[in-house]
Amino acid sequence: MVKSLGSDNHSGIHPEILEALIQTNYGHSPSYGTDELTEEVYKIFKSHFGEKAETFFVFNGTAANVLSIKCFLKSFESVLCAADSHLNLDECGAPEAISGCKLIPLPSPEGKITVDQCREALIRLGDQHYSQPKMVSITQPTELGTLYSYEEMKALSQFCKENSLYFHIDGARFIHAAHQLNKSFKELTQDIGVDVLSFGGTKNGLLYGEAVIVFSKDKIRDLKFYRKQCLQLPSKMRFLSTQFKALLDRDLWRKISQKECELASYLAEKVASIPEVKVFQKVQANSVFVKLPKEWVKPLRNSHFFYIWNEKDWSARWMMSFDTEREDLDEFVNKILELRGES
Amino acid sequence: MVKSLGSDNHSGIHPEILEALIQTNYGHSPSYGTDELTEEVYKIFKSHFGEKAETFFVFNGTAANVLSIKCFLKSFESVLCAADSHLNLDECGAPEAISGCKLIPLPSPEGKITVDQCREALIRLGDQHYSQPKMVSITQPTELGTLYSYEEMKALSQFCKENSLYFHIDGARFIHAAHQLNKSFKELTQDIGVDVLSFGGTKNGLLYGEAVIVFSKDKIRDLKFYRKQCLQLPSKMRFLSTQFKALLDRDLWRKISQKECELASYLAEKVASIPEVKVFQKVQANSVFVKLPKEWVKPLRNSHFFYIWNEKDWSARWMMSFDTEREDLDEFVNKILELRGES
Amino acid sequence: MVKSLGSDNHSGIHPEILEALIQTNYGHSPSYGTDELTEEVYKIFKSHFGEKAETFFVFNGTAANVLSIKCFLKSFESVLCAADSHLNLDECGAPEAISGCKLIPLPSPEGKITVDQCREALIRLGDQHYSQPKMVSITQPTELGTLYSYEEMKALSQFCKENSLYFHIDGARFIHAAHQLNKSFKELTQDIGVDVLSFGGTKNGLLYGEAVIVFSKDKIRDLKFYRKQCLQLPSKMRFLSTQFKALLDRDLWRKISQKECELASYLAEKVASIPEVKVFQKVQANSVFVKLPKEWVKPLRNSHFFYIWNEKDWSARWMMSFDTEREDLDEFVNKILELRGES
Amino acid sequence: MVKSLGSDNHSGIHPEILEALIQTNYGHSPSYGTDELTEEVYKIFKSHFGEKAETFFVFNGTAANVLSIKCFLKSFESVLCAADSHLNLDECGAPEAISGCKLIPLPSPEGKITVDQCREALIRLGDQHYSQPKMVSITQPTELGTLYSYEEMKALSQFCKENSLYFHIDGARFIHAAHQLNKSFKELTQDIGVDVLSFGGTKNGLLYGEAVIVFSKDKIRDLKFYRKQCLQLPSKMRFLSTQFKALLDRDLWRKISQKECELASYLAEKVASIPEVKVFQKVQANSVFVKLPKEWVKPLRNSHFFYIWNEKDWSARWMMSFDTEREDLDEFVNKILELRGES
Repeated sequence: MVKSLGSDNHSGIHPEILEALIQTNYGHSPSYGTDELTEEVYKIFKSHFGEKAETFFVFNGTAANVLSIKCFLKSFESVLCAADSHLNLDECGAPEAISGCKLIPLPSPEGKITVDQCREALIRLGDQHYSQPKMVSITQPTELGTLYSYEEMKALSQFCKENSLYFHIDGARFIHAAHQLNKSFKELTQDIGVDVLSFGGTKNGLLYGEAVIVFSKDKIRDLKFYRKQCLQLPSKMRFLSTQFKALLDRDLWRKISQKECELASYLAEKVASIPEVKVFQKVQANSVFVKLPKEWVKPLRNSHFFYIWNEKDWSARWMMSFDTEREDLDEFVNKILELRGES
Repeated sequence: MVKSLGSDNHSGIHPEILEALIQTNYGHSPSYGTDELTEEVYKIFKSHFGEKAETFFVFNGTAANVLSIKCFLKSFESVLCAADSHLNLDECGAPEAISGCKLIPLPSPEGKITVDQCREALIRLGDQHYSQPKMVSITQPTELGTLYSYEEMKALSQFCKENSLYFHIDGARFIHAAHQLNKSFKELTQDIGVDVLSFGGTKNGLLYGEAVIVFSKDKIRDLKFYRKQCLQLPSKMRFLSTQFKALLDRDLWRKISQKECELASYLAEKVASIPEVKVFQKVQANSVFVKLPKEWVKPLRNSHFFYIWNEKDWSARWMMSFDTEREDLDEFVNKILELRGES
Repeated sequence: MVKSLGSDNHSGIHPEILEALIQTNYGHSPSYGTDELTEEVYKIFKSHFGEKAETFFVFNGTAANVLSIKCFLKSFESVLCAADSHLNLDECGAPEAISGCKLIPLPSPEGKITVDQCREALIRLGDQHYSQPKMVSITQPTELGTLYSYEEMKALSQFCKENSLYFHIDGARFIHAAHQLNKSFKELTQDIGVDVLSFGGTKNGLLYGEAVIVFSKDKIRDLKFYRKQCLQLPSKMRFLSTQFKALLDRDLWRKISQKECELASYLAEKVASIPEVKVFQKVQANSVFVKLPKEWVKPLRNSHFFYIWNEKDWSARWMMSFDTEREDLDEFVNKILELRGES
Repeated sequence: MVKSLGSDNHSGIHPEILEALIQTNYGHSPSYGTDELTEEVYKIFKSHFGEKAETFFVFNGTAANVLSIKCFLKSFESVLCAADSHLNLDECGAPEAISGCKLIPLPSPEGKITVDQCREALIRLGDQHYSQPKMVSITQPTELGTLYSYEEMKALSQFCKENSLYFHIDGARFIHAAHQLNKSFKELTQDIGVDVLSFGGTKNGLLYGEAVIVFSKDKIRDLKFYRKQCLQLPSKMRFLSTQFKALLDRDLWRKISQKECELASYLAEKVASIPEVKVFQKVQANSVFVKLPKEWVKPLRNSHFFYIWNEKDWSARWMMSFDTEREDLDEFVNKILELRGES
């Protein structure tokens, strides 16, 4: 079967992670996170994210985001986020329905929001008629494959501290941020004052599983109960733990990210010389955003599936997975050239 | 490691199900349930549960129950359920918090509720001050290892139809009901008029995964969206599908149930002759409920873990898993005899 | 029109309160509680309930109760309350739907719950599968016209303090508690450690309006926003304030309570000699609970409306209002005697 | 006391409405809307809005809006509304928190949204990741004192019908729409296919009270229960009914609207000749939106209070009430002229 460029969840389980699952499948083990392996993995997380990092495994990324909001905010408080964030556009209203909180979407042509935008949105504080802004949520890397720089992250976090806002990161693909910015997870979270991180697993080679990582001691008890109440407490927890151990313990995460990000750059370079194809976002993680001639979309998708990002201008997203290979991309580019009549 | 009698989620993944996971881990596949394997498995469910059965995979049992309520009821409607049901006692208030609905707990000394109890609870219909009963939810097999007979199920379902109530089954261990009552899944659901079933996987050898099976065509669209909004849409769906295929397709479910139920009976018989141990619930599925001398609890739990069901009378639950063996139980009974000074 | 014995909300507006409304209807005034009169009335509340008492006016009693829960509890926490409380039976599931919290109903044959019951319900603390008990809510006077003694209130409040529970009183008819127990409002709230009180107005002669009185400084900001979000922020606030001023400022509340409670006792005494009529609850506030011959119910209700409390034994509630008179009761008793064939 | 130009809820009770309240204050009456007067007033509403109009009284405008959403939508459905609507900006996130639904704010420089905007927002139908647009909500007259024309209303309603969307009107000041467009209430609602209307009372001279008017038979039962559950069921209902009767029965509403709208035009005309004051919205209802020199704001507000609409450009809102008089406005304009140094 041809590799898809549709999403990093079209691939399956990374072989090393599958091997970990298999190795963990012996005998009996306490459920719900009280097993020894899980305890060990919590420590691995601390070694990567800092001593304050308390980890809660959940099933998927929407859940990680919604729990982050529900645990930190009251229902009359709101979240400043990018207008094109997953939170705002792709979670079927789960943040509002499950946490009760309002989202305040800010325009984000490159997937990013700025301190200035947040400052401008910080209005009507204390006014009982207005849902009170209390959290800034960014996606890192963004939905558009771009990255906040380390300085941008620090500035946003500092702004949050100065204004008593919580700082949340939707990090479904956070491994690419750490790799591409050449920073440790701790430098990008605990050290700059992140309050809570949705740390992705599924899009980085896991079968399933994300982690909510909380850096505020006083929210830990609440999150334990909110996780269960929000339908996110896995019973056979050791199998989540073992996958994250495989991802984190011997830098598998870095190998995966390095490969995917290089592939994205490789593909972007290869299409740079094709005038009909315009890469319209910086390629800073594992995806390439392009505008294509409308008539190429159908035949290209038939050979290698990908998503149309915006039907209005036929922009598209090409996404790398852990098992994407140069050959897949070469084949794909050849298909494009064929459509140009070059082959 | 010694086998636990704690829960059927202390065991890991059934070898045949793990093998299915491994076999499914190749190439790319569309996510969120649009892959071919998932389509195929939906048909397998129809072959077991009837043509009306529409299947929605979710992550865990609490989610299956809560989605069943949220999809069928409005927030001013309530659920009649057993006072000692998982729904009422073990889901951290998720039914109320996520669906908004009220639970009306009915006394259930054997884990079961009756038509008479439901009829008595059907009060104040049309009275705007009273949350309107609109669903009967039973657990089959019950939390106490007992079974509703086929006739009891039919009577409850008929009562629901006559009173415009929905009929829900929490079937985290439903495979044992089908096996022990010697009925097909279809006979126990579609044929008697069940509206929605939480069909368990995790406690029956899956790594993770439950299914909400809906028998009402007009709820299908809603459930699709509610599943996503309630944080329950798995992305790499094929891996849920393949596990359920392994469970259902070649009667693995029956082999698992037969073994577990026989083991439970075996253990109950072996302790029947020990006067200090009183089996106080019928052994009709894969668990044995006993009362024990208080001073035996600690040493016994140290050798084979199990849960105390009620701290007031030191009653306990012994639960079989797919990988429990007679030798484990013999060893456990020997430990009891040892405590009696018989060994 | 004949006076109803149906409810203390079948009467209209007490003349002194209507007069206050009329007097307040001049010129313009800031809305939403920032007017001078409202500020003044907040002080009147402090003079009655203690310096810690912070008052939030809302529209009705269900709202006062639900806001009390929503402001103090998280959605994974639960409320211990009487099984026959208004909270549990007569608010259409609003506590669950709006706060997300679970109610734990405790049997309450006389409308009251005890410290022992609460202690027994304080189980599974720290267990993430179980909604955590965090509030005790009592109705004072109860739904059944009975009263917790001052000592019982103190004992419940102390139990709450010792167990980190919040103590809430549903005081839709709290004026009768203060009058009948011969205690000040402060003695029954701030002094014994009540955390939050729903203080009723509507059933005591107001056109509309209740007050949530909070004794915990750290909840005040939250309640301001929760009130608005829960649809309870009145715009023309001065008219709520003026009504409560009329009720509280010159002991109108005491006059109303004294009259109503005396009338209830008067009626209870008059029917004491009628063997077919059994007063089955202590008459400690403004209502009389009786069991009646079934065949008397219809003709009696036709002349003076009242509610059947329980259709199973034809028990009934007779409720006094501020404008009920001895003549009304005499006439009612004559009707009973007539039915006996005595007239 | 000087009249405020702050809001039409700074005034008190219209004398005719107060008189109605006084006249209704006699004897006893069934509560919760089962009294004869309320039945009569429901018919008056039908005579104004059409035979399909079913009326539910509630306490305030936020409640009317939220109930309209909660009754018609499921939590995975969303509402298209003006970005500067009360729904979006001034209800403390109540729509999201109480209904669970998402709001999709559309830019609305004149307070209005268009069919084209709605059509453009009608995306991703059937996509489970996206909250499904299901209602268009307009404010008529708008927050900015402008009016949708009759044709614009019809076009929006027709668009809704064609796309299976519900059409809601936030009509806190709907009396001005009927008066200014010279249409009956029925022509502006039932006849053009409105599904549900929040019909305001408080801002039009009532002490308190709004009405949710539903034109869809199949939502009536639900609304009854949702109203109670959402804390909006008034007990002494006759006093709401009598106020609305006074407003509607003898065209008091029209007198009020005519006076207020004329006053707004009068004021707009008077300031038209003052070059420093720019009326920046059409004056089509009972308010005037102006931009003022920043240094005039404080002295003007000290004499006649009004709200700053936008602190960035010192735009302000001047609002007429039923008891505003030409003299008040003359005095106010004189104050402006004084500030110019003209007096």
